[in-house]
Amino acid sequence: MSGVAGAARRGAGADRRLGVTAAAGFGAAGVACGLKPSGAPDLALVVGDPGTVAAGVFTTNQVVAAPVVWSRDRLAASADARVAVLNSGNANACTGPAGEAAVRATVARAAAELGCRAEQVLVCSTGVIGVPLDAGRVADGVSKAAAALDRSGGLSAAEAILTTDTVVKQAGVRVPGGATVGGMAKGAAMLAPELAPAGAAHATMLAVLTTDAVVEPEVLREAVAEGTATTFNRITVDGAQSTNDTVLLLASGASGASGARPEPGDLVEAVRAVCRDLAGQMLADAEGGTKVVSVQVGGAGPVEEALAVARRVADSPLVKTAVYGGDPNWGRVLQAAGTAGVSFDSGTVRLEVAGGPGAAGIEPPVGGLERVVLVERGRPTGADAAAAMARREIELRLHLGGPGPWAEIRTSDLTPEYVRLNSEYTT
Amino acid sequence: MSGVAGAARRGAGADRRLGVTAAAGFGAAGVACGLKPSGAPDLALVVGDPGTVAAGVFTTNQVVAAPVVWSRDRLAASADARVAVLNSGNANACTGPAGEAAVRATVARAAAELGCRAEQVLVCSTGVIGVPLDAGRVADGVSKAAAALDRSGGLSAAEAILTTDTVVKQAGVRVPGGATVGGMAKGAAMLAPELAPAGAAHATMLAVLTTDAVVEPEVLREAVAEGTATTFNRITVDGAQSTNDTVLLLASGASGASGARPEPGDLVEAVRAVCRDLAGQMLADAEGGTKVVSVQVGGAGPVEEALAVARRVADSPLVKTAVYGGDPNWGRVLQAAGTAGVSFDSGTVRLEVAGGPGAAGIEPPVGGLERVVLVERGRPTGADAAAAMARREIELRLHLGGPGPWAEIRTSDLTPEYVRLNSEYTT
Repeated sequence: MSGVAGAARRGAGADRRLGVTAAAGFGAAGVACGLKPSGAPDLALVVGDPGTVAAGVFTTNQVVAAPVVWSRDRLAASADARVAVLNSGNANACTGPAGEAAVRATVARAAAELGCRAEQVLVCSTGVIGVPLDAGRVADGVSKAAAALDRSGGLSAAEAILTTDTVVKQAGVRVPGGATVGGMAKGAAMLAPELAPAGAAHATMLAVLTTDAVVEPEVLREAVAEGTATTFNRITVDGAQSTNDTVLLLASGASGASGARPEPGDLVEAVRAVCRDLAGQMLADAEGGTKVVSVQVGGAGPVEEALAVARRVADSPLVKTAVYGGDPNWGRVLQAAGTAGVSFDSGTVRLEVAGGPGAAGIEPPVGGLERVVLVERGRPTGADAAAAMARREIELRLHLGGPGPWAEIRTSDLTPEYVRLNSEYTT
Repeated sequence: MSGVAGAARRGAGADRRLGVTAAAGFGAAGVACGLKPSGAPDLALVVGDPGTVAAGVFTTNQVVAAPVVWSRDRLAASADARVAVLNSGNANACTGPAGEAAVRATVARAAAELGCRAEQVLVCSTGVIGVPLDAGRVADGVSKAAAALDRSGGLSAAEAILTTDTVVKQAGVRVPGGATVGGMAKGAAMLAPELAPAGAAHATMLAVLTTDAVVEPEVLREAVAEGTATTFNRITVDGAQSTNDTVLLLASGASGASGARPEPGDLVEAVRAVCRDLAGQMLADAEGGTKVVSVQVGGAGPVEEALAVARRVADSPLVKTAVYGGDPNWGRVLQAAGTAGVSFDSGTVRLEVAGGPGAAGIEPPVGGLERVVLVERGRPTGADAAAAMARREIELRLHLGGPGPWAEIRTSDLTPEYVRLNSEYTT
């Protein structure tokens, strides 16, 4: 494995100062166009120099927002796209023909401002579902952002895509050979992506990654599909796959002047590292969340079965409330594991819990990990895991006793604050 | 359809004064044996006269408690069973060989006290998982309960099986032709049964039903399977299928002296009516719950697909928190519906909400229903549903625009109190 992959697994290695303008050949801006009642920034623009190509993955929800339909269709037809317009404050989902018209007006304005074709413009939206999008405000916002476009505008763009997020999310890595991959993301709830190239994601999460690598469209598509499959697609805040989930990857080729051309495998690993770090930042900022949990399941047979078990545990409200309470309630972990439709012998199960920095891959592992075996051969050891469960980062490691690889789903805890936020806020 | 079925659908028709001793030929008792630290009653005994036969359905969790293994094996081998011992305060799950020994000690004591064979004794447990069950206390409790056995002890037994439940749950109906079906149940969380005759339920829910009907074992098995399939198996509090879910149905045949012998169809409908009423009582008593919701989905194709969509909506934390907040957030209903793996055209969707007594089948429909169409042909109507959503009983009726029957999953809301209870209480 490359160093980047190793770093990704540790949740370290990504530099959070690197955003969508870290790679050469990109400009970005974030502005306020009046969609958010607060007047906060709500429109972001990311623009690659001419020659930029793009790939993307999208929600697999049956109910998809108008911007998803547009961007998915564009990228299915061609990699020739170099502009991304993202708005927060309104999802433009379940908005009918008016929603589609708003997308057309948005891309027309962007094309006019930036001197490209409408087909080269991709659109992402996040916010409340079912409220008509004010196309005039968005178009004016596009003009404003185009005027503000800056080679170091990444942070400004990252701020403009936030909804209930409390912090900006950026990450980047240097690819062996000289190129850079950088990105930004948003997402704090309605978060359980199942992204796929032509229609397979859970959450509203949006992410835009950029690179200056010289890369064939085919490799770009592989990089975004592979890079999201084991990262964004393996986190869940609330098991709720959004209508708007989108991850875009734009490649300018600007590093080509130096003759650098990364190995496809290195590019994929770099994209994966950035996606994993951004996914971890989302979990750390989950609505109402106080803890981050890595649920790891092994010995379940094929990896798909290990993932199914891990997802049942990660989405269990009883496990998530126990985590919130710091209660090492291993009975709930086994109970949830037993409902995945995967057969195993409960008498061969082993469960351990670890708590401390790095346990859930959010922070670099700087030591202080406390590891306790709670269940051995299906029976409680009587060990005290209260100290481990009290930590902010928790790893639940469940081996079902059979053959088969480990698989991981990361999640947050379920808290009264999550309930309060989502009973008061209309998304 | 028979009158009983009609009544069941309305959630009315069952008499909540009728419990497990309403049918002739049964005695019951509830006592305290020291499993609950509070000293509250925690052991129940239900005993049918000699000649009683039984059938049951059990959790389909891969992790099953020792009492489930015992009772399932007994009823798979023979309908010849006439005693049910139920304890609360300890689930006897994940307790290894000691848990199995505790079951054997329990049935041996019951057989000795009641003059039957051990194989005629069924056992159910509910409470904390993974804590050794004190077999001595349970056996002493069985002796105490046997001494207290009473032809009108149903209510006392119903009280002894409660855990976090706040109210006793009983229901009964008179079967056309002269027999009676009565029952008791417990369940407030870890509640999403998927019960099956030889290993197919979601929740800890326990229920014991009795009847004095003269009935063949084959019809009894059909009655408990059919009666639970569209009732207990179609409710969910938290999507968490327990390790201990059990529904038992005992038939004494005591009404045979009068020559009465119900039609099999009438018996099935009577069992279904009792199960539906008990299931509704569980939802009304859901942990932290303030509202009960009936999610109805139609036009999805086969009934299995309608159920899959309804279950996604009913288990969505975003829908459940919106219900708690009284927010007619239809976007979340459509978002959740779109994640069931069932294809539909979001442009043909219709969603209506009704609020008021009877809407979710908990209370008899006494009027006051407020019905509002929120989405028509996939687009918001702009109607105000705040008044309907403010009611304690809510019906969400989603038609996906295709052919196919309606299906219903009933649920509760997700509240800060549910989180508080489950972050503090070790189950």
